[in-house]
Order: sequence, then structure tokens, then C-alpha cells
Amino acid sequence: MKFVSIIMGSKSDYEIVSEAAKILELFDVKYEMIISSAHRSPKRTHDYVADADKRGAQAFICAAGMAAHLAGAVAANTTKPVIGVPMGGSAVNGIDALYSTVQMPAGMPVATLAIGKAGAKNAAYLAIQILALSDDSLSTKLAEDRAKQEKSLEEDSKKIEVLLG
Amino acid sequence: MKFVSIIMGSKSDYEIVSEAAKILELFDVKYEMIISSAHRSPKRTHDYVADADKRGAQAFICAAGMAAHLAGAVAANTTKPVIGVPMGGSAVNGIDALYSTVQMPAGMPVATLAIGKAGAKNAAYLAIQILALSDDSLSTKLAEDRAKQEKSLEEDSKKIEVLLG
Amino acid sequence: MKFVSIIMGSKSDYEIVSEAAKILELFDVKYEMIISSAHRSPKRTHDYVADADKRGAQAFICAAGMAAHLAGAVAANTTKPVIGVPMGGSAVNGIDALYSTVQMPAGMPVATLAIGKAGAKNAAYLAIQILALSDDSLSTKLAEDRAKQEKSLEEDSKKIEVLLG
Amino acid sequence: MKFVSIIMGSKSDYEIVSEAAKILELFDVKYEMIISSAHRSPKRTHDYVADADKRGAQAFICAAGMAAHLAGAVAANTTKPVIGVPMGGSAVNGIDALYSTVQMPAGMPVATLAIGKAGAKNAAYLAIQILALSDDSLSTKLAEDRAKQEKSLEEDSKKIEVLLG
Amino acid sequence: MKFVSIIMGSKSDYEIVSEAAKILELFDVKYEMIISSAHRSPKRTHDYVADADKRGAQAFICAAGMAAHLAGAVAANTTKPVIGVPMGGSAVNGIDALYSTVQMPAGMPVATLAIGKAGAKNAAYLAIQILALSDDSLSTKLAEDRAKQEKSLEEDSKKIEVLLG
Amino acid sequence: MKFVSIIMGSKSDYEIVSEAAKILELFDVKYEMIISSAHRSPKRTHDYVADADKRGAQAFICAAGMAAHLAGAVAANTTKPVIGVPMGGSAVNGIDALYSTVQMPAGMPVATLAIGKAGAKNAAYLAIQILALSDDSLSTKLAEDRAKQEKSLEEDSKKIEVLLG
Amino acid sequence: MKFVSIIMGSKSDYEIVSEAAKILELFDVKYEMIISSAHRSPKRTHDYVADADKRGAQAFICAAGMAAHLAGAVAANTTKPVIGVPMGGSAVNGIDALYSTVQMPAGMPVATLAIGKAGAKNAAYLAIQILALSDDSLSTKLAEDRAKQEKSLEEDSKKIEVLLG
Amino acid sequence: MKFVSIIMGSKSDYEIVSEAAKILELFDVKYEMIISSAHRSPKRTHDYVADADKRGAQAFICAAGMAAHLAGAVAANTTKPVIGVPMGGSAVNGIDALYSTVQMPAGMPVATLAIGKAGAKNAAYLAIQILALSDDSLSTKLAEDRAKQEKSLEEDSKKIEVLLG
Repeated sequence: MKFVSIIMGSKSDYEIVSEAAKILELFDVKYEMIISSAHRSPKRTHDYVADADKRGAQAFICAAGMAAHLAGAVAANTTKPVIGVPMGGSAVNGIDALYSTVQMPAGMPVATLAIGKAGAKNAAYLAIQILALSDDSLSTKLAEDRAKQEKSLEEDSKKIEVLLG
Repeated sequence: MKFVSIIMGSKSDYEIVSEAAKILELFDVKYEMIISSAHRSPKRTHDYVADADKRGAQAFICAAGMAAHLAGAVAANTTKPVIGVPMGGSAVNGIDALYSTVQMPAGMPVATLAIGKAGAKNAAYLAIQILALSDDSLSTKLAEDRAKQEKSLEEDSKKIEVLLG
Repeated sequence: MKFVSIIMGSKSDYEIVSEAAKILELFDVKYEMIISSAHRSPKRTHDYVADADKRGAQAFICAAGMAAHLAGAVAANTTKPVIGVPMGGSAVNGIDALYSTVQMPAGMPVATLAIGKAGAKNAAYLAIQILALSDDSLSTKLAEDRAKQEKSLEEDSKKIEVLLG
Repeated sequence: MKFVSIIMGSKSDYEIVSEAAKILELFDVKYEMIISSAHRSPKRTHDYVADADKRGAQAFICAAGMAAHLAGAVAANTTKPVIGVPMGGSAVNGIDALYSTVQMPAGMPVATLAIGKAGAKNAAYLAIQILALSDDSLSTKLAEDRAKQEKSLEEDSKKIEVLLG
Repeated sequence: MKFVSIIMGSKSDYEIVSEAAKILELFDVKYEMIISSAHRSPKRTHDYVADADKRGAQAFICAAGMAAHLAGAVAANTTKPVIGVPMGGSAVNGIDALYSTVQMPAGMPVATLAIGKAGAKNAAYLAIQILALSDDSLSTKLAEDRAKQEKSLEEDSKKIEVLLG
Repeated sequence: MKFVSIIMGSKSDYEIVSEAAKILELFDVKYEMIISSAHRSPKRTHDYVADADKRGAQAFICAAGMAAHLAGAVAANTTKPVIGVPMGGSAVNGIDALYSTVQMPAGMPVATLAIGKAGAKNAAYLAIQILALSDDSLSTKLAEDRAKQEKSLEEDSKKIEVLLG
Repeated sequence: MKFVSIIMGSKSDYEIVSEAAKILELFDVKYEMIISSAHRSPKRTHDYVADADKRGAQAFICAAGMAAHLAGAVAANTTKPVIGVPMGGSAVNGIDALYSTVQMPAGMPVATLAIGKAGAKNAAYLAIQILALSDDSLSTKLAEDRAKQEKSLEEDSKKIEVLLG
Repeated sequence: MKFVSIIMGSKSDYEIVSEAAKILELFDVKYEMIISSAHRSPKRTHDYVADADKRGAQAFICAAGMAAHLAGAVAANTTKPVIGVPMGGSAVNGIDALYSTVQMPAGMPVATLAIGKAGAKNAAYLAIQILALSDDSLSTKLAEDRAKQEKSLEEDSKKIEVLLG
């Protein structure tokens, strides 16, 4: 069974991270979601990743803040794509989490997305794009979603548009 | 035919970006590589991406510097995974390119990697990880590469190690 | 017919961007205003810019946040002056949008203004200054506006001034 | 007579700023170029701007580093478009000059371009775009320049391109 | 008559800047306070500074935000000490004003203090320290103020102190 | 008698700093806590540190904001471990305090922790880890605390977990 | 046997990190030094830390660059003091490593020192200060070192001193 | 006897700091210059400042890098004006020293100048401006220096000027 695994470093990340879960549900993509920390529960993280990897996880979405090591710690334990979401809300507004997530050394990639909610949503989109490479129905849904995004933008525009003759 | 597409925004990116090509070659992954710019050749970028998408591109690696719009422009024209490499070397050391690449709005992900050479290498690794989801021989090679990385680290360590008793 | 075209990347930019529209109205400058995105509606953006360019747009004011590619995408499709307004409100307070807007490569200028509301107002002022080069009545209005700004400052000062002897 | 005025704050800016002059020469646009400082020669700056404004300056290109007040000081003395080029090379790599140039208060725009050489070139391009609004031959040259830029990119690409079948 | 001149760039600076006035009053130091802008009222600024300089201003306290040119513009018109207070509250929290104030070129110093309220207070303290060089009663008051500061700290400490044995 | 000394630079730091005290109490570690400033009460700081050092202070936790010199000033007066907590809340969100605390010159270390509350808590944890080197019961408590942290995380996870099969 | 353990993430850190080793040797403090990475050799790191902890490591000095997770990964596997040295040399000059090291979540402290060489030296000093709590001869050496530092400074001063009268 | 006191934190600051001395010599202003550190020689710093204050120091110029506490430490021990020069050259290019110098708490001002050489020169200029308040010959020299600066700028300009008709 193919699924996406979502791991967050702390319960305080839940509200933002659940945005990723909602997107996956919209696309009918199976997912798991747990809290596990690179620091407070390193063995749990390691064991879960090893197990999920074997059970069919196609990508790991990892969300953490501050010195955000979670995505890197997961990347060190799997060769499946690891997707990092830097959480904002720290003293330096998530720049700490961004650097801790994106500046990975060669050989150990973390696919990093925007800080916070936009990043959480895009983590799901990226996972879906990866799954869609071998699932045509997902490809179709992604194309439909793009069309819907554009249409919604056009409707937004209509409400405020000023056009000359 | 499945392949990875590498696009760079300027010839000045070539030296760094070719690090990605070398990694893909090491893993026997087919790739294309061109120069095309979001700004100087928007139609060429659009047409190439549409064509490569149809011909089997599984992921697009996009490398650009300064106001690095290339990965975003590619992402707007495909639902295949788009991988962004922010190029350094600007007045602000690539922070401009990092923000321009990673801070994408919801619905339009760019999988962003580290600034510069480490990012270029990891872009290739991430593309390989994505391809490996449906290619067991690549999975095996990735596992072997990890083992090799660790072994090489151990050998490095031996040269400088100080161990008591 | 000469006019200024205002494009914003998202409806969430409307409140700030309408400050530009208000200034244009104060100077009786014709303008158009739409929502269109470099990423969510690239074709719409391209088509609108090509059309507006032909119909007499003298300058394009582009407002976008985060990885703000809109102004650059417009600049790639016209040789009319493109004016960029980086929107704040992101995790990094608009520095992402500032860099994504101002750090354009040689040959593709975006005239960038301050982050947020001051920038939106100044985008309108800059467009008016450009139009005023061939419209003496606008020049006169600009001079009057400067005088009014100074007078208003002097009145503000009077309320709090402390002057010796 | 219509011309572009280039002002730099110090002789150390000359090498970078002359990139703007070269672009103007390529487009056969008349220009003036002087050194004058907001701080070391405020009266000279004021007098020159007033005079050049009257004599037909269509835009002022102002290049300065560190606490780069030159563009703002010029903007305070003309309602012609003022184009700012933040110079790099300071302890903080030109971020000081960028903020000092772009973050102008409402009512006093400075059209800001990239830090350093790319910004200097684009300052010239922006000035030409402004002049082209009332000069069709300049418009044609700008379109030709874009085509040339794209062609040169394609030639660069040919040298390193890897294309599959 | 010796006095301190306080200039702020906008009425929005008044609340913070009045902290400087309060300190000067506590030390019975005469001061003037006006609103004048480097950009919106350059002539007024110039004329006021020239006049205040002649009438006995011993130091100029200049408070401005964003591309904060006020202190530099004043410094260009007097050789009296100019004290700069970068105002916060901008998109980038006053870092723009800090750089625009402190990074002055050689030969044109602006004595820069902390962003916002602490800076406003310290601007007054610095002015008083300068006046105290030729006014022994002010020196005495400064010493008394230091003693009072320390005493107040000790009283604060008493309320929360935990001391063993 | 062995104890930990907590010094904060201002009463405004109390709420955050008391988080450190709470952790020390949880581990039954004796502590002192006072307000003393590197600037407003340098002699008091010096005398207290010298005295506390002699009376058995095993580590000094120093919390200060802005140009946070307190930890460095304490480090200059003792060779006991000095632990720095940069306080947030400044115009630049504590980055000033972070740099002022962590960037100590060679020979004068300050063990620096995260900005704000997390840093205050970790200052206590670090002090306890240091004391635990010669106190086995503290070592045991630290191990128990880690187990408790992990258990609490697992309980948090249970509330939101989504697990397949 | 009590000793200090030094771990670096890559051989490229060796030159800087060996500064720590030199300081430890000057104080006759036993140490181990290996290369091990949080990402490339997570099991090796885990096993070494567990073993060194049992064999008597009193503190772990961890040096790593970019997304510097090493110190945090070690901290997650021991309750001994963990000392972090952020390595410079990255695209963003070590700010990435600083944030990745210092911004640890509550309950998992990493005692962070300055970026690069000064930090490496101070890591050794901090470790020695910790050991000195239960080793009077080390305390004496630290006091002597301080005196030597001050004397060397005075000698440096003599060479350039200008003193009146 | 009135003089200016220059203190630098380390011999490595000498080359930059001697720029201040040269300016003072040009204006025939008496000065002292020593190396003393807030951290390595706190008592020496304290004693020297107390003594120089009594002997007639009119201002203290303090230059230091990294966590630059020197100016603050001097300010805590005198009520004479303290002028801070943040030294560059650190991992973060002197931003650490800038924040550590300028962000002083209320009641304890440090008059901060630009990072590095421009700041060192301006520290001297500011000290001279302060002395000139009670020394008319210095005032005259400052006015002459301004005129010379402007003249030198005009000569620089002549070499590169392009003026139309």
C-alpha cells in the first residue's frame, strides 16, 4: 500500500500541519500522521521511519520549528523523498527552521517548502505530484486542481476588476 | 522514456549545475540539460517544459540566481515535481535566490535545496529518490551510495581520529 | 488611450494595492486593475499584458508577496516600464518579496518600491511621474502635490512644535 | 533636448555606474554623468538637479552605497522619475544601500533596481523604457534587444545542451 | 543660548521622540522640537538647521524611519554633532532605518542610537553628556541619574531576589 | 554549598527567566536569582559574581536583551561556566541579544542557548547537566525527565495520530 | 577516566576544530576526536556517543556546518553537556549553522559558541571550565590563563600605545 | 588638558582604528590610544577610563568586534560621551558588532558609527565636532574640511564628467 507519512516535531505544529492532511484528503491520498521528534524521541522517529518505509511510505513530510532537525533526521534513515516544512513562530520568524531544513549537506536532500501554512499545503502537493508519476488519476486531479485555482483567481478578480472599455 | 530535465537560467550557472548532471550520470539516470530563462526566454521555457513533460520528464531541476523565478515559472507549467536550486554569488550571497525559490504560494510547490553546489548535488539525489519509487535498481543504488558515504566518512575519520584506550 | 495597468497576484493584496488606485484617481489618471498570478494564471497574465500593452498601457504596477515573481513575469512580456511592489505579511515580513522583485538580472528591470502600503502609493506616484513626462498638466499636479505634502507637514509640526525665542 | 542624468555619490562608484552609460550609448540615448553627493555636496546636488530638470532630463539615475541617500535627495528636488542603484561592497554587502534606497516614504518614489552591476545596467534599461514611451525608434530597439538577449541565451545553451533523442 | 534641537521626519514619530524631550526636561536642558523631512521639506530642513545652528544649537537629534535620511541630511548642513534615532515599525522592524542612519560615509558622522524608544531616550542622554562637558551642574546631574538608575535596579531586584544563606 | 546563580539584566526579563528557576526547582537544585546589569550596576554585578563564585556557584545563568553584555561581563569575572540567554522582544526580535551573547572572543566562552523562553528553560537544563557530572541522583533525574518528555510526546501524538492498518 | 569528546561532521571541519584540541592539550585535558555525521553516519554517531558517555566523557564538543544537526543529535542521546560550534564558510556565512545549533527546543540544550575558530577555542574553554568544577588544578590553570591573556593584551597595547603626560 | 581617548579591544583592530588617530592628528586634537578589552582586561578598562575621565578625556572612542561590549563597558563607567565603532571581519561581517554596540538600553548611550573604516574615521570626526562646541578654531577647521571634501569631489567628478552642451 502506498501512502504519505506526515511527521511533526511537536503538538504545537498540529494546526499548521493539518493543512497538509486536508490537501491529501482532497486528492484521496492515503496518509499517516504522527508526532515524533528528532530530539525528544529519536528512537521512535528512527523506528517509525524504518517501519513506514517498509510498509509503503512514498514520501515523508516533516514539519518542525526552531533548530528544525526532524526532516534531516528522517532523511538520514530512508532514501525515500523527504519533504521539509519549516515552522514559523520562533523568535526569528522561522528563518531558523528554514536554514535548519534547507541547508542540508550533499548526499542527503530535504525538499524544502515555504515557512508555515503555505509550506504545509505545498508539502502535500509535492507528495501528490510524486505519487502522480505512477498514478494517472492523480495526474488528472492535479490538472483539474490547477484549472480550479485559476478559475477561483478569475472569480476573485471579477469582484475588484477595473477594465477600460 | 523517463528522464530528468535540468534547466539553468544562465550560462554562469553551468559549473555549479553540472554537479547535478554528474550525480545523475553516476546513477545512470537519463537527463536533459538546457539554458532557458524565466525572463529572457519565457516562451522557450514554456515550450520546452510542455514538450519535456509530454516526452517523459519525471522531474525538473531548475537552477537560477538573484530574483530566481525559473523554478516557479516551470512549476506554473507542469504538475511534475519541480526541484529548485538557489544559486549563490549574488550581492546577498544567494539569500535572494533562496527566498525567490522556496517561498512559493500554496498550490505551486518548488522542492528547494541548499544554496549552490550542495543544493545542485542534492537536486540530483532528490530526483533519483523520486525515480527510485518505481525503479528498484535505483533504490538499491541509493542504499549503496549511503553505505559508501558512511564508509568514506569513516576513512576520513581514521586519518584524524584520537581515541583513548 | 494612455493608462496605467495594476496587476496583483492575489485577492489578499487588494487592500494594500487599492492605495495605488486611489492616488491615480486623485491625479485623474486612467487605470485598469486585475488579479492575475505568475503561477496560478501564467497564460492569463501573459495575454492580459500583451493586450494592455497594445491598448496603451504606459506602465504596469505589479504587486505580489512571498516569492513575488509577478513583476518579473510581466517584465518578460513587455518593454513598457514595470513597477514592482513587494507585499509584506509573509513569515519574513516581505523581505522575500523585496528580493524576488528587486534582484532582477541585467536586461529585465523592475522598478521596485518599498514593501507594502508606502510602496503601493509610490508605485502610483512613479507611474504618474512617467506619464507626466509628456503631460504638462500632470507635471503641474505633481508640483502642487509636493507643495501640499510640505504644507501638511508644516501643519503637523505646528501642533507639536517647541521653539525657543 | 531630452536626456538621462546619471549621478553617482563617489568616484569609487564609477566602474559600476559606467555600465549604465554603456547601455545608454548602445541605444543612442543622450546622457549626462557627474559625481555629486547628498552629504558632501548637497548644494551642488540640488543645483545640478534643478538645472538638469529644466534642461530636459527625463530621468535621474542615482548610484550610491552605504547609507545611500543620493536618490532620495534627488527625488526631493524633482518630480521627474528617479532611479536608484544601491551599490554593494559595504560591510553588509549593499543591504544598507538597498534599504536606504528602496524604503522611501509615501509620496517620494525612488525606482530601485538590483544591488551593483545588474542594477546599474537595469537603471539604464528602465530609463530607456521610459523614454521609449514617446519614441517609437527606442521601442523598436528595446524589442530588438530582447530578441538579441534570447538569441544569445540560445547560443549559450547550444554549447552545453544535452537533449535526448 | 545653548539648546538641543530635535527634528522628526513625520508626525507618526512624535510619541517615541517625545521620550527624548522628557529626558531633556528632567535635566532642565533647553530644546526645540519640530517636524521636518529630508524629502518632503528639504528646504525647510536646510533653513531650520542653518538657523538653529547659528542660534546656539549644540546638537541635533534626528528621528526618522524607513529610508531614514533625515540625520544625514542634517549632518550635511552643520558641523555640530548630529544624533540619529532609527525608528522601528517598518516592514523590516527598523533595520532599514538603522542602516540608513548608521552607515554614513567617512567625513559625515551621525551618532546613531538604538532603534525606537530606547534610542530616543539615549539620544537625549548623549546630548546631555555633550552639553555636560562645559556645564558642571549637568555632569553632577548625570552622575546622580546613574546612581538613581542603579538604585531603582536594586529595588526591582529586591522584589524577586532569591538569595541563599 | 553548590548552587546555580541566575542574573537578569532588568525586571522586564523576570517572567521569561523564572522559567529557568522553575526547572531548577523541579530538579531540587539550589539557586540564587537577582537583577543586576552590566551597564546600570557594573560594580554590583562584579561584586556579586565574585562573592557567589566563592560561596559555591557552579554556573551563572545570565539573561539580557538588546546589546546583551551581561553574560560576557560575568564571564570576564569568573572562570565558572557562564550560560547566556538572549532575550527577545527587541526591535530585531532578539537577534541583537543573540549576537551580543554568542559571538564572544576566544578565551571567554558564554554557553549560549535559544532566544527567549526555550533558552531560559535550557539554561537550567544545561546547569543541571553540569551539576549532574558529580551528582548521580541528578543524572538519574535527567534520564527520567527525558523519558517523561518522550512519553508526553507519545501521548500528544495519540490525540492526533492517523495510522494505516 | 574523564575526558572530553570532540565530534565533527566532516573532514572539512578539521582545521578549525583542531583549535579546540590544541586548547585541551594546553590544559592537559584528555580528549577523543572523531568524524561522525548526524546524517551520513547516524548509527555511528549514536553508538559512539552511548559508548563515550559510559566510558567517562564529561562533555561533547560538536562542530558542524550548514543545517548543523550534529550537536542536537548528540544531545538527544546523552544527558552530558553538549557544546556546539557552528561552522562558517557556507553561502550564508555560518548563520545557518548558528541557528541550527542554538535554537534547540526546551529540554534539549546545546551550549552554543561563536561561529568558527573563536567558537572552537571557546568550546574547549567551556569544557575545561566544566571539568574544573571538580578539579582544582584546572581551576588554577584557568585563572593563570586569564592572567596570561591580560598580560599578552597589555604587551600588545604597549606596542601601539599613545599616552599623554 | 582636553583629549580624546581611543580604546580598541584587540591588536587586530589597530589598522582600522589608526584611521581615527590620523583624523585627530589632522585636526591637531590630542588623543590617547590603548588596547584594553571588556573581557580580557575588565579592571584595566575600568581603571583606565576612570583615570582618563579625571585627566580630561572629553570623549571615548571604543572599537571592538564580534560581541563588541567594549563601548558599553566604558559607557557604564563614565558619563562622558562614548563613541562606538563596530569592527567588521567577523563571520557575520560586523553585524554582530553593530548590534552589540548600538542596541544599548535606555540611560546608557553609545554613539555608534558605521562598521569598519568609515566608522573609525567618523568616530574621530564626531569627537572633533564635540570638542569644537567649545573651541572655535576647531569649528573653523571642520568647516574648511567640509569645503575640502566638496572640492575633492568636484575634482573627482571633472575626471569622468559627461555634460551636454
